[in-house]
Amino acid sequence: MITTPQHPKLSVMNFLSQVEFDYPAATSFASGRPSDRFFEMPRWLQSIGAFQEYDAARNGYDAAAALRRVAQYGRTNGIINDLVAKHLASDARLRCESENIIITNGCQEAISLLVQELCGERDVVLARDPTYTGITGAALGAGVSIEPVGDGDLAEALRETIARVRKAGKTPRLLYLIPDFDNPTGTVIPLAAREAILEIAREERVLILEDGTYSMFRFEGSRVESLAELDRHGSVIYLHTFSKTLCPSIRVGAAVVPAALFGDAESSRRLVNALSERKSYLAVNTSQINQAMVAGILLTEQFTLETTVSRARDFYRRNRDILTEELRAGLGAHARRVHWNRPEGGFFLVVQLPFAFGSEEMLTCANDYSVVVMPMSFFSLTNGHRSTVRLAYSNLDPSQLSVGAHRLARFILDRIGAN
Amino acid sequence: MITTPQHPKLSVMNFLSQVEFDYPAATSFASGRPSDRFFEMPRWLQSIGAFQEYDAARNGYDAAAALRRVAQYGRTNGIINDLVAKHLASDARLRCESENIIITNGCQEAISLLVQELCGERDVVLARDPTYTGITGAALGAGVSIEPVGDGDLAEALRETIARVRKAGKTPRLLYLIPDFDNPTGTVIPLAAREAILEIAREERVLILEDGTYSMFRFEGSRVESLAELDRHGSVIYLHTFSKTLCPSIRVGAAVVPAALFGDAESSRRLVNALSERKSYLAVNTSQINQAMVAGILLTEQFTLETTVSRARDFYRRNRDILTEELRAGLGAHARRVHWNRPEGGFFLVVQLPFAFGSEEMLTCANDYSVVVMPMSFFSLTNGHRSTVRLAYSNLDPSQLSVGAHRLARFILDRIGAN
Repeated sequence: MITTPQHPKLSVMNFLSQVEFDYPAATSFASGRPSDRFFEMPRWLQSIGAFQEYDAARNGYDAAAALRRVAQYGRTNGIINDLVAKHLASDARLRCESENIIITNGCQEAISLLVQELCGERDVVLARDPTYTGITGAALGAGVSIEPVGDGDLAEALRETIARVRKAGKTPRLLYLIPDFDNPTGTVIPLAAREAILEIAREERVLILEDGTYSMFRFEGSRVESLAELDRHGSVIYLHTFSKTLCPSIRVGAAVVPAALFGDAESSRRLVNALSERKSYLAVNTSQINQAMVAGILLTEQFTLETTVSRARDFYRRNRDILTEELRAGLGAHARRVHWNRPEGGFFLVVQLPFAFGSEEMLTCANDYSVVVMPMSFFSLTNGHRSTVRLAYSNLDPSQLSVGAHRLARFILDRIGAN
Repeated sequence: MITTPQHPKLSVMNFLSQVEFDYPAATSFASGRPSDRFFEMPRWLQSIGAFQEYDAARNGYDAAAALRRVAQYGRTNGIINDLVAKHLASDARLRCESENIIITNGCQEAISLLVQELCGERDVVLARDPTYTGITGAALGAGVSIEPVGDGDLAEALRETIARVRKAGKTPRLLYLIPDFDNPTGTVIPLAAREAILEIAREERVLILEDGTYSMFRFEGSRVESLAELDRHGSVIYLHTFSKTLCPSIRVGAAVVPAALFGDAESSRRLVNALSERKSYLAVNTSQINQAMVAGILLTEQFTLETTVSRARDFYRRNRDILTEELRAGLGAHARRVHWNRPEGGFFLVVQLPFAFGSEEMLTCANDYSVVVMPMSFFSLTNGHRSTVRLAYSNLDPSQLSVGAHRLARFILDRIGAN
């Protein structure tokens, strides 16, 4: 008999997708998908031509040869690294050499590669609680344990967690963070905390995986420098993706290894090579067709996706506002018993309820109120956060947001007996 | 300091690519790339439209909506499984249900997923010696040991290997085979051996990974039924790819789980779900843009790639003949001291030399004779096969083949002192 390892956490992502399939008529706040109204697929597919021309010119062959090269096997770490470096310089204010970039099948492959490459069985991945299920799954799937960094002051909690892990005879190896508009909490790590975290990373030799997925989606307030920008000690690997700025099925992301890992350039070079080898056995390389699309768009847009992103960002900001206003309206006088944050960007809102909300409540909402929301406990490493829910507002139209908010409000009112 | 695990075998693939970069002027028999002269990228990109129409019609929405759906996140296991099932029925004579198919980032991702999902630390992957470096890398990268099945009668050697593994307290879990036009040996496993292997797999509960990458490239002789076709006990997972029939950068492959794994349908269902979950944390899903391209081509071609493949196949057959003729001509009277097979299909020829051929000889050939060939020992799990080389003839023009064959012959003649 074939047996497969059972990881309780591994079932979350599939469980969630299933809920959406099971309730097609419900308004779904479940999944953090970019709005498809801004996808420009016909133009994006055409943009392969822009890369073709560019590649032909720089290599001195004709456009047909450039397209054949795109279709063939190629460099494991990618063929558009120099163009992505220019894009990162422009849109993430990140300076990096193209040889330190590994182009991946989305950000998720970068996460998996890094966890598999860097963590042995006595190593631990650290993450906030709640956190993105992609890091939890990547760690547990690789047989690596993941330890929650407690609430409260993040730097202080991080020190405590590291001490606890070391005391248990394990090594804290990686710290996964989404500093801008976190998934699932929507929060931003303040500058002072970022600086403190970097100092701890340096002292403790913990490598930070900074996931910049939502960084271009700031609605208001001042931009906070990224951990990679602030890093002076080679302690941050920056993770990038085009899934939200272009579209998810482009499946192109990147990992940026610092020039000198904890001050050691040779160590960086070795890590890039090791990731390259691991990637070659995981999936050979990232489709060069998709890389050519991304490259063509970057060439056409002078390396910045600011214009591409701006309309979607405005839409998401308005969605956040509509959602909170409609929730307030739906709850009426009882709104004061329910709390939510006002994220300065990103895709997610967190609602704190005056009662526990788990699988059962999720199913009740879906079955009886035609609204799907994610219990925050699904993202928790401690099975905590039992009375909060995550609402993704990115892929709903204003009318759907309004209907969904009122359905959720109705459920809340019924549950607290306010009729 | 970040340390990375060192696997000696993991360096082969990168070492090989480097050789090709280092000697751009040399004739390279190194890499088993399909010939790019048959790539039809412009038409293949257009074929996304055929899938769009099909998908719009079956779902009752317009073509623009279908394209937005392609661009969005989607089902982890793929969105073209039913079309791939029809293609497999037509071109691999394989009957399977679409829910047992997992669409992957090429065949390599399927291999990695299966090894990671099915093998624990006491499990062993079995493979022929020499074998494809992709299985070696996937196993060692996952911390799973790989055991060579000895030479001679394959079924007998398999029994002996299984007994030896069990005696060492380990469990033989997977057997990886390319039964048609093996990489790197070019050989075909005869029908009787296939039947014997299936019987052993059933008795010993060893799951066979049948890699069908080269199956459509038979030049002559009778087709041998695949292991998956012959399988009556649910002991074969069939691995499929479009990298050779279409082009490598399409990055679409598939794993087909049998309807009832060793007779147990529930076990199959669990494995499909487990692979789906693992895939979601490895790379979310396979780009739906690439899936739409494949699907559009399959729809246009009535699910068979026979016409698409036929011209390339004729080209490869002629290439095999040119290579062997030119080798013979170049070696002249000394040809009798050098032996090669006459593969009935595929991309690879094996040449047996009257002297050892390793890294040093490879570099001499590249530096002094401008010809790159792969020592077979690079593909060996035992560091054996020290006097054979692998010649890939698939991606060279007739004139290159001739030049390369004469350069290799010159090296051989010089080495055996026949001047």
